Amino acid sequence: MFLGFPDRFFTFQFKIDVMKPLLAVTLFVCLSTVGYSQTTDKDLIKGIFDAALKEGKSYQMLHSLCTKVGHRLSGSPGAAAAVEWGRHTMDDFGFDSVWLQPVMVPHWVRGQAEVGRVVNSKKIGSKDLTILALGGSIGTGPAGISAGIIEVKSFDELKQYGEKNVQGKIVFFNRPMDPTKINTFAAYGGAVEQRANGASEAAKLGAVAVMVRSMGWTNETYAHTGGVRYAPMVRQIPAVAISTQHADLLSKLLKDDRDIQFYLETHCEMLEDAPSFNVIGQIKGSEYKDEIIVIGGHLDSWDVGQGAHDDGAGCVQAIEVLRLFKMMGYKPKRTIRAVLYMNEENGLRGGQKYAEIAKAKRENHIAAIESDRGGFAPRGFTMSGSDAAKAKLKNWKALLEPYDLWDFSQEGGGADIGPLAPQGTMLIGYLPDSQRYFSYHHTQEDTFDKVDKRELELGSASMAALVFLLDRYGLK
Amino acid sequence: MFLGFPDRFFTFQFKIDVMKPLLAVTLFVCLSTVGYSQTTDKDLIKGIFDAALKEGKSYQMLHSLCTKVGHRLSGSPGAAAAVEWGRHTMDDFGFDSVWLQPVMVPHWVRGQAEVGRVVNSKKIGSKDLTILALGGSIGTGPAGISAGIIEVKSFDELKQYGEKNVQGKIVFFNRPMDPTKINTFAAYGGAVEQRANGASEAAKLGAVAVMVRSMGWTNETYAHTGGVRYAPMVRQIPAVAISTQHADLLSKLLKDDRDIQFYLETHCEMLEDAPSFNVIGQIKGSEYKDEIIVIGGHLDSWDVGQGAHDDGAGCVQAIEVLRLFKMMGYKPKRTIRAVLYMNEENGLRGGQKYAEIAKAKRENHIAAIESDRGGFAPRGFTMSGSDAAKAKLKNWKALLEPYDLWDFSQEGGGADIGPLAPQGTMLIGYLPDSQRYFSYHHTQEDTFDKVDKRELELGSASMAALVFLLDRYGLK
Repeated sequence: MFLGFPDRFFTFQFKIDVMKPLLAVTLFVCLSTVGYSQTTDKDLIKGIFDAALKEGKSYQMLHSLCTKVGHRLSGSPGAAAAVEWGRHTMDDFGFDSVWLQPVMVPHWVRGQAEVGRVVNSKKIGSKDLTILALGGSIGTGPAGISAGIIEVKSFDELKQYGEKNVQGKIVFFNRPMDPTKINTFAAYGGAVEQRANGASEAAKLGAVAVMVRSMGWTNETYAHTGGVRYAPMVRQIPAVAISTQHADLLSKLLKDDRDIQFYLETHCEMLEDAPSFNVIGQIKGSEYKDEIIVIGGHLDSWDVGQGAHDDGAGCVQAIEVLRLFKMMGYKPKRTIRAVLYMNEENGLRGGQKYAEIAKAKRENHIAAIESDRGGFAPRGFTMSGSDAAKAKLKNWKALLEPYDLWDFSQEGGGADIGPLAPQGTMLIGYLPDSQRYFSYHHTQEDTFDKVDKRELELGSASMAALVFLLDRYGLK
Repeated sequence: MFLGFPDRFFTFQFKIDVMKPLLAVTLFVCLSTVGYSQTTDKDLIKGIFDAALKEGKSYQMLHSLCTKVGHRLSGSPGAAAAVEWGRHTMDDFGFDSVWLQPVMVPHWVRGQAEVGRVVNSKKIGSKDLTILALGGSIGTGPAGISAGIIEVKSFDELKQYGEKNVQGKIVFFNRPMDPTKINTFAAYGGAVEQRANGASEAAKLGAVAVMVRSMGWTNETYAHTGGVRYAPMVRQIPAVAISTQHADLLSKLLKDDRDIQFYLETHCEMLEDAPSFNVIGQIKGSEYKDEIIVIGGHLDSWDVGQGAHDDGAGCVQAIEVLRLFKMMGYKPKRTIRAVLYMNEENGLRGGQKYAEIAKAKRENHIAAIESDRGGFAPRGFTMSGSDAAKAKLKNWKALLEPYDLWDFSQEGGGADIGPLAPQGTMLIGYLPDSQRYFSYHHTQEDTFDKVDKRELELGSASMAALVFLLDRYGLK
């Protein structure tokens, strides 16, 4: 099916670089063997993967972002530094244009470390447990909260307890992620309502705070933060995550001793919205410059760890796609844009702003690709769009399967590109293996050393290969 | 195609265990919903995966093997401890029978730490480089060897230098693993002849020792050991691996200064063969007990790290298959055997002995499955056997693909099961994702903390699911 497209629409130029003799030889042989105009998609996709694995910069970029900037919650100095990092990185690679797109973002701060203490356990006396305030939560303030605990596994169970049992208590949501889900995002999806909506559900019945089992696997010693969403018109109460190991401990203690008192102290608060930016780099199309293919990840992270998998990986992969094209001398027909979205974690303001501006400028985004599932080994792409567009993408499977990209069956795009959907943009999510993601997600453990160089590079190349096909053939 | 097989040949009993209420409920619902005799393969395979992920012991077993036993080179006290570990572990799980199969193994010892020193570099003066003697190598003895270095990338290049240039020198084989191979085993295969045969190739031309670039990726600070094979009738010379980081450094130094002298000192030696054992556990078949399905990994490791991925993972996965069947109350029709082979790394004596005894006893091994590619996330199975048997396995793909087992295209079984091939046994290799394997392989880095719990458990379940299908339907 690929031979049906006229090769004259396709240009591939090779940039001689004396520092990169091996790649030069590989591609040169490839080009001279098959002849310039007959260069096949297969060869060019191999060229992309070869370049990413042999002369890739994804890993080096991620090291720089993680260690020089570190974590970067919206509104924080880290986020501001990350914006500069993104701009300078793309400027240095010499993309056609690099700019900042202003956006106001929520500005939440954690303040001093949380205290979560079992006060009077008959078995263990007084003991501090590992907790972490949820992003967006109000704080208890220095006076803290002392209260009894009521443990539930679901909102239904909570409602059954009713106001008379919940009033004045700390509600402890303790439903684990289901380990039998092969797709770990499904396990996350089955538990995360406790974190997102638990505070308001509990507040409706008079609870004074909530403590939520971390969205992680059993026996972890660290807690997972993440956003809490306060429902409108419901009293806001403090919300924290507890490590799964301590959730299990607490549950065990409560079985024997329902009257345990808990002391909770958090110092977090929501400040005024702060100015920030999406960071955008672009290579202008040579033929259909008004057709835009956007690739991206989110630049902000939570305020723990280094945001390596979530989503430093997606950011450097997006930049790497443009860099690979430039290094290989590939001149896209369509405009290719890398966007590092600000504020995915606690507001999605960056993704919304990007779509808003695109609409106002009447830009034509034919496809948007997001990488926000970690820098793990390739598995496929999720997609959301017209049946015709999906069929076209699935037809490329044979070209991509040699690179372990085999799963094109799942619906979906990504949080940051979602707001483009009403503009008719096809949404595509890079789908890596999901097994390790939730061991690190939103924790102190999401650090550079958890990322494998080859796995990260394969993700960059996977995205570049798909962008190449989208650019070459469009979606019509 | 699965409905064509009579369900009456299949028995599934459920063992009530009050300690495991969740699984009990899951399977019970499944059984009561579809009815006992109509229980589908799909449901039972889901039951296997659920059990492995929810109540698995793979990770716990591997922790015990790695931390209580540690590394376990053939003939070492560690190997003897590992044999006892294997026997006790399987005894404790109450398999129908557990026994040791005696086998004599090579007994090589590293002795005190190696010294590899650039003596007189114009640029850096004297500097110790990171080296590690290759398994099976003779030592230099305490006097060491001082010699000049000749760097080559291939045996052809070595031959072009010829005896007059090689005589008296240390040959430095420095061809990297090709990072552009998506299947990293292909990258390994493209470089490992330097390690396996380099010493004899160099000795033929009068070299005094060889130093081989580690079979790893660039910029690693540690060296990879692995076996050297001395050719018959060729003088044996000392052979060491050098870390890729120091291989690149040395190569750079040699470019400016071809007369660098190198001091090499190794204390390794080959002792008399030592007695050891394969460790075997078995569940006897209820219907076709003379048809054996064997699953296994190798119990020995190199004498660095903990042999976690290579091949503690394969051992615990093999044991876990039997344990899962027993825990789930599944009574196989055919005999299922877990074998922990001794001496895969430097002799393959265990695998050979197992096949030799099987032949002498006229046992009928219908299929042998090996896991020796690390405890990583599932991708598929390799296979080697008759076209009909392969077709049968590939027909099960739809049942296995929901667990990310999608690649059934590669030929191959495994080193330890290879000797069974002449008996007509179908050989099958568990094929996990290969990206991280060669970062750890044969190094100090192959430790328990490099293994992800879920990835390991998914491998166990993958093997158990395949054994279940082989047991239920046979291969005829």
